[in-house]
Amino acid sequence: MTAYAISAYDRLKSRFERIGTIHEAAAMLGWDAAAMMPAGGGGARGDQLAVLAGLAHGQLTAPAMADDLEAAAAAPPPAEWDAANLALMRHAHVRATAVPPELVEAQARANAACEQTWREARRLGDFATVRDRLAEVLRLVREQAAALAPALGLSAYDALMDGFQRGVTAAELAPVFRDYAKWLQEALPQAEAREAALPSAVLPQGPFDAAAQEALCRSLAERAGLEPAHFRLDRSTHPFCGGTPTDVRITTRYNEADFTGSIMGVLHETGHALYERGLPAAHARQPVGQASGMAAHESQSLIVEMQASRSDAFLSWLGPQLERAFGGAPVAYALPNLQRLYRRVGRGTIRVDADEMTYPAHVILRFGLEQALVSGDLPVSDLPGAWNDGMERLLGVTPPGDAEGCLQDIHWYDGAVGYFPSYTLGAMAAAQLMAAARRALPDLDAALAEGDFAPLLGWLRTHVHGVGSRLGFNDMLREATGSPLDPAAFMAHLSSRYLPVASPVHGV
Amino acid sequence: MTAYAISAYDRLKSRFERIGTIHEAAAMLGWDAAAMMPAGGGGARGDQLAVLAGLAHGQLTAPAMADDLEAAAAAPPPAEWDAANLALMRHAHVRATAVPPELVEAQARANAACEQTWREARRLGDFATVRDRLAEVLRLVREQAAALAPALGLSAYDALMDGFQRGVTAAELAPVFRDYAKWLQEALPQAEAREAALPSAVLPQGPFDAAAQEALCRSLAERAGLEPAHFRLDRSTHPFCGGTPTDVRITTRYNEADFTGSIMGVLHETGHALYERGLPAAHARQPVGQASGMAAHESQSLIVEMQASRSDAFLSWLGPQLERAFGGAPVAYALPNLQRLYRRVGRGTIRVDADEMTYPAHVILRFGLEQALVSGDLPVSDLPGAWNDGMERLLGVTPPGDAEGCLQDIHWYDGAVGYFPSYTLGAMAAAQLMAAARRALPDLDAALAEGDFAPLLGWLRTHVHGVGSRLGFNDMLREATGSPLDPAAFMAHLSSRYLPVASPVHGV
Repeated sequence: MTAYAISAYDRLKSRFERIGTIHEAAAMLGWDAAAMMPAGGGGARGDQLAVLAGLAHGQLTAPAMADDLEAAAAAPPPAEWDAANLALMRHAHVRATAVPPELVEAQARANAACEQTWREARRLGDFATVRDRLAEVLRLVREQAAALAPALGLSAYDALMDGFQRGVTAAELAPVFRDYAKWLQEALPQAEAREAALPSAVLPQGPFDAAAQEALCRSLAERAGLEPAHFRLDRSTHPFCGGTPTDVRITTRYNEADFTGSIMGVLHETGHALYERGLPAAHARQPVGQASGMAAHESQSLIVEMQASRSDAFLSWLGPQLERAFGGAPVAYALPNLQRLYRRVGRGTIRVDADEMTYPAHVILRFGLEQALVSGDLPVSDLPGAWNDGMERLLGVTPPGDAEGCLQDIHWYDGAVGYFPSYTLGAMAAAQLMAAARRALPDLDAALAEGDFAPLLGWLRTHVHGVGSRLGFNDMLREATGSPLDPAAFMAHLSSRYLPVASPVHGV
Repeated sequence: MTAYAISAYDRLKSRFERIGTIHEAAAMLGWDAAAMMPAGGGGARGDQLAVLAGLAHGQLTAPAMADDLEAAAAAPPPAEWDAANLALMRHAHVRATAVPPELVEAQARANAACEQTWREARRLGDFATVRDRLAEVLRLVREQAAALAPALGLSAYDALMDGFQRGVTAAELAPVFRDYAKWLQEALPQAEAREAALPSAVLPQGPFDAAAQEALCRSLAERAGLEPAHFRLDRSTHPFCGGTPTDVRITTRYNEADFTGSIMGVLHETGHALYERGLPAAHARQPVGQASGMAAHESQSLIVEMQASRSDAFLSWLGPQLERAFGGAPVAYALPNLQRLYRRVGRGTIRVDADEMTYPAHVILRFGLEQALVSGDLPVSDLPGAWNDGMERLLGVTPPGDAEGCLQDIHWYDGAVGYFPSYTLGAMAAAQLMAAARRALPDLDAALAEGDFAPLLGWLRTHVHGVGSRLGFNDMLREATGSPLDPAAFMAHLSSRYLPVASPVHGV
């Protein structure tokens, strides 16, 4: 019996090795489509990605896969990594088989049609243009959630979130988000008052040659720990991190009038890339060897960008590097000015432009609305009004139109519901992990002040990257920091960075 | 019966559409490996390509494929394109199923091991280092040929050539190559004497900025007919043309001391790329919609590079473009100097450095030797001596060592036997097609003298590119030029370009 079960698990490993390799091929083609491909290749590329997705899905849902999962379950492998791997294999199989193929196809069609129409609606600033298509997308999302929920033993909305980050529930998130929104009501005006009292930030005079920005970005990515033999830095309209663990591909865009965006943008993608590079190579292509989810991924981009790279320690080292690369008045590169350049707060209507303090408000708004859309409590036609009310309540601003309101993000219109919380989970986890790393490594900031990421990276390799998906999101945090997700470190971080010293809100 | 047969053919088309799409994905990943990939991605990329090759092979050899081929054969589709497509489907299936999987695996292992050892042997200039591994590769090639030959109804060597260019036999080639070798004995001394009597070619003073070379190369590729939305030009150690018909990827390398190589190198790859771009889109991914083979492909690179771009007409237009890009003494860019720069003949030992007149001698040598190696008439240990004897007989030169002799090419050491003839078949076909195009288009050279490739491209689209694989190599030539492969046009081309006017050899 044991012999047979072990052999079933070995067969499963081979199958997932093949599936993982197909996903790698697709990841490289996705990178190419965004960073390299001439426009005329788009049609064929779509076909290539669809065929690869179909082949991977076919392997995942094959009857032989179900047989082997059943056989392996009868005598599960004893090692912790293998046991976790088997559980994740089953989870992937359940997700892939729970949704009928006809629904998958209907969603692909409806999402594509809605996304097209959304581009037009956003251009026009007219929600009504896309309302019916969004209603159809959400109708199918509800069907999808209804199929997934019982198979996974989760609520409908949690089953959707599970597709982006396993192991987090709306019930856990709701109080965390509620507390944050409450804290923000008090903290934001204080942060604004403090910022208003400071001198204005000085942006050095450009233009800043894109090639010079790129060279500096590349050297910073290498300094943060990416090895030249294992990464590329290229350009794309929307910055991202793609590729595979031994060959990560990061991209950014350059604004020759302002270098601040590309520098921190590349450090953000570098955080994602370091996570991929640090995944446990012994479990490459196995489910347990993958990144644990979108929230975990975002925690790694944000710990490098927001926690480490915007710290006083690192900015004090970065200033002279910027001055050497771009020249101009030294005062622009001094720490007080860099602090002001890289730490602005403000009430805006656009999520992707938001600072780290107000960003969670944008997520909290979407978290509430998408639950109501999935449950049906919020009719689609009421979305614009509910959106604007929420923005007013959370940040005291009202979008001038739907383009700056409920039409601003592609996600829902492309069928992605349950994704938004990952951004703020990641931000909170980043602060929690950074606080734990500082406790463990008293010289962490001294190293950053010399542009040295090695101590931080070493700690992350052990406590996050190398864990892969062996632990769920909260268990990973618990082992690394002593507690599951706890927003206190995030609020403490924001307080010390943005609030007046000794503010009563500090340390909530 | 008919209804069932039609449905079987439609199923076959779907299967080959999927196989073709997998091949497209692999082609893009192959391009990336050569032009973009950091070194550390090599291991994973090898796995990705192996998995894709395995998936495509699995589809091609599936029992359902054999059933559908049999059903479709019972009532073959009436249209010429579909009938040709079905025949090519069967041909692909036969090739894929004739060789046992264990032999395919053994070859993959032996070829990889031999190729590795060959690199070391070439570095040492010592054939003995790789002799036994080459013997093993050739032993397996003989097994492969023995498996393929009866299935295809071809001789052992022809079955190997069939893998690179269908529809050409050694029996047809032997007299063509024999006549060429004889002609060369008389023509080469005359060409050398003529060249010796000319003033030396002047290379403009460098350095020639790689970015400036690249910009000019890109504009020439576009001028030749590649649309910016459908191609990329990048850099790689070994120039090549890859990608897919709607997204062709060409590469070259730049020598800042000498621009002549990159310019003609890119025009060569542009010829390959234009063939891919011009394949019949209605049959994309079907066997009948593919390029007909390596010889046909080489005819298209060489008609653009050797026939059109090195013609007096085009060089007279190119001179001012080069002068504008690189500057220096105008005399260097005048037609007589460009003729001398771009048309040198010489007896060398290295194939890839050979001019268009002596290149076939290098191929003829390999054609004879590889037949003898496959038949067993030539023991592997006798290869270096046979090689050197052949070089002496054909070109009157002896390699200083094996590195410049039988170790110079990767092909045999990687298991590729039967490929070399394609180079010279392509060169001969290019001359034959160019002569036919000139007869059909009296203004062809007047257009080239204005840097205008459109008339030539239009003719090639109709008579070569758009044919895909509907016709075999010789039938394509017969429909386009009035006769199957005939080396007379090639010799007439060389005579008029390299021999003294009114030479007795002219027109053989």
